[in-house]
Amino acid sequence: MRDFLPADVVRRDYVISRIRAAYESHGFVPLETPSLERIDVLTAKYGDEGDSLIFRVLKRRDALPPLTPETPPDALVDLALRYDLTVPFARVMAEHQHRLPRYFRRYQIQPVWRADRPQKGRFREFYQCDVDYVGTTSLLAEHAVMTAVSDALAALRFDAFTVRLNDRRILSGLMEAAGVPAALHGETLVAIDKLDKIGAEGVARELRERGLDDASIERLQPALRLANPGAEASAAPVAGAATLDELDALFADGRSERGAEGVASLRSLLALLADAPLPAGRVLIDVSLARGLGYYTGTIFEIAVDGLAGSMGGGGRYDELVGMFRGQPIPAVGFSLGLERLLVVLDERGMLPELRPGAALLVAPMDDVATGPALRLATQLRAAGISCEVHPEVQKPARIFKYAESAGLRHVALLGTREIDEGIVALKDLVTGEQVALARDDAPNELRSRLASAHG
Amino acid sequence: MRDFLPADVVRRDYVISRIRAAYESHGFVPLETPSLERIDVLTAKYGDEGDSLIFRVLKRRDALPPLTPETPPDALVDLALRYDLTVPFARVMAEHQHRLPRYFRRYQIQPVWRADRPQKGRFREFYQCDVDYVGTTSLLAEHAVMTAVSDALAALRFDAFTVRLNDRRILSGLMEAAGVPAALHGETLVAIDKLDKIGAEGVARELRERGLDDASIERLQPALRLANPGAEASAAPVAGAATLDELDALFADGRSERGAEGVASLRSLLALLADAPLPAGRVLIDVSLARGLGYYTGTIFEIAVDGLAGSMGGGGRYDELVGMFRGQPIPAVGFSLGLERLLVVLDERGMLPELRPGAALLVAPMDDVATGPALRLATQLRAAGISCEVHPEVQKPARIFKYAESAGLRHVALLGTREIDEGIVALKDLVTGEQVALARDDAPNELRSRLASAHG
Repeated sequence: MRDFLPADVVRRDYVISRIRAAYESHGFVPLETPSLERIDVLTAKYGDEGDSLIFRVLKRRDALPPLTPETPPDALVDLALRYDLTVPFARVMAEHQHRLPRYFRRYQIQPVWRADRPQKGRFREFYQCDVDYVGTTSLLAEHAVMTAVSDALAALRFDAFTVRLNDRRILSGLMEAAGVPAALHGETLVAIDKLDKIGAEGVARELRERGLDDASIERLQPALRLANPGAEASAAPVAGAATLDELDALFADGRSERGAEGVASLRSLLALLADAPLPAGRVLIDVSLARGLGYYTGTIFEIAVDGLAGSMGGGGRYDELVGMFRGQPIPAVGFSLGLERLLVVLDERGMLPELRPGAALLVAPMDDVATGPALRLATQLRAAGISCEVHPEVQKPARIFKYAESAGLRHVALLGTREIDEGIVALKDLVTGEQVALARDDAPNELRSRLASAHG
Repeated sequence: MRDFLPADVVRRDYVISRIRAAYESHGFVPLETPSLERIDVLTAKYGDEGDSLIFRVLKRRDALPPLTPETPPDALVDLALRYDLTVPFARVMAEHQHRLPRYFRRYQIQPVWRADRPQKGRFREFYQCDVDYVGTTSLLAEHAVMTAVSDALAALRFDAFTVRLNDRRILSGLMEAAGVPAALHGETLVAIDKLDKIGAEGVARELRERGLDDASIERLQPALRLANPGAEASAAPVAGAATLDELDALFADGRSERGAEGVASLRSLLALLADAPLPAGRVLIDVSLARGLGYYTGTIFEIAVDGLAGSMGGGGRYDELVGMFRGQPIPAVGFSLGLERLLVVLDERGMLPELRPGAALLVAPMDDVATGPALRLATQLRAAGISCEVHPEVQKPARIFKYAESAGLRHVALLGTREIDEGIVALKDLVTGEQVALARDDAPNELRSRLASAHG
């Protein structure tokens, strides 16, 4: 876990504010849930591995059961830290749906906690920036989510990224048409998802290990060829769309109605994206995209920044999860951007603007007599919209400038008995080294225009 | 613990943004620490009661010791949730001081967690808005903290509040002058702190219960009379200052050097406050103010809003705590504003502006043909700075308006085949009921000026 010093906080806040603004421009509204959830809300939602990574909170002393070898560890626990933003969102929908509009577009930017072994770029406390759109099966929900996320990336000055697009029903259709038994669909998806990492050979080997027979693996080969990773090199705004015709042929004549449904849905979504294209984003139909989590039911997508391995985030349609606490399906499309990965990339590529925490100006009294006038000057400057701090101790200019530099303060207004007698303020610019005398009464206006040009 | 629905989030964000802006105008810079701290960082810092209210995190499965009746509950735990912002700040100062300027003014606005029994206005997860100024014994640090907090309250439109002011050394002096044994100073402070709740009689009774002899209690009486709660009724910008003369008399002739130091320090602080007064804030010398926590070493203060029992927050100088993880004293002055209490008061007094989450406009396609044009219009509007969402399903106007109302969307742009043929957009204002036709090409400009006037 990490401390964020002021220079870190202003960078994180900058990125978050850009993402928020993009989400809000599409009508998404903010939601926040508590860090702690009842343990039963979270357990059995993230698979066995996820489950073991949940931070659990010990019951308070008076509620703790006696400790014996028979005490199950779960009996020690009543609360747990938020593991993602999706399950808490589903709980909110169950508790508050009557207060929410029929179509509810929420964004949520909050930390989540996972007891992962820390490694480069992965942390035990990290922020997710989620958008979810619930209440409709219309593909305009997919379009809204994809566009909002693309706008967020564009606002952060990414000028080339690729949205990989698939549909869970197409994957089901491929397995159905290849005769993979339904019980093995999950295992098959996990293997197919690795196509871009381990290649078609590797996928075939993994499928064999996961229990598929050779005939099914053989019948899956045309499907794997359709994944068509070569299309990544193409610069067309929509790549791999020809794949949809081949898929149609594969699913035709009742070989998979579900698969055909997925293809038709992707075609409609591409039509919407032709009407209102993603800013700076390319769309790539990628049949190998499976997305790890089991809850997706339709469209799935990931966004990758050109020239960078891995994705910036992913999402899709999941029509069954949001309603789980209510016992009725609520259609939903969501997407999650990872803040930490974004920050690493923005930093490595020098894409963040120059951001400096702290005041615009240091006001330094040069002797005890000047303390009162320095405080009054600072009050006037703040009233004029100029942030400033007052140097707390009387010291020689060299020492004051040294502090100002270490605190990132470029401008120092010096005020001593001489300046007070002459009705002036001595303004030092530590970057240019220039020192000028400003008339005391003009100081707020004069400083405002000088600071504006120095930072502009 | 609470979910914050969109209308809640925008109100909280408004208050936080005002507080941040005030803190930043005084040169305070943001710091953030992780939610989880190592348990040993937090234990034995908050007294026994505080200790029992810390949320502890169970070790992960592979690190959990065998459960037996002999296993101490502490052996099950390695991490804990942040209980306040001060102890983590002290840890940060020990770890990162070499990277921080000599005088470090940080603010921190983050949640803390306490396993308190929930009650009205008190929650297990709540936000503190702290400012701390470390690195100097100068009273300009006190002045900066008091002014920054007062500016934050003034920015939230509080126009009358009182800063109660005292000095721990005065309290020590009073006890010293009254001959209270040093070992009973802590107990005595706890009793004196209750003066405004239980009166002088109650304090005397409590002092007796806590082990003070009658002679000491008798000798404390003049001190208790100095507390002078009647001064609260005065409207002078500094009330109770006369008390300082009486205190001087009490401490004179070597009866308490420490007490005399405290008086001199308060006089100097009052001089600074005369040079640069608090906006809308009155200062009241209150000898009974003790502040619960044991770590204060000098100035202590609390801010109360006129007409309201209890305080909005408190703070003071604590020159020994920040250095505790480093083994060397680092002088510090801090203050903590409670966000939840602020929100309750702002809400009850109707002091929050009207804030509405969500888009400025709903764009609704009236038939399938209009979907593409609606998406294109929405893209244009966003490019012109108008936030908007697209209604996801084709429905009758009455149904669309019903959704818009439930989502708090006042303006709806309707687009059907007729509007497309005529090159117009039908704009409905759900508050006035007015519907007008706008030329399609002028729509972004026209909408911008209409929305500005509707919300202005």
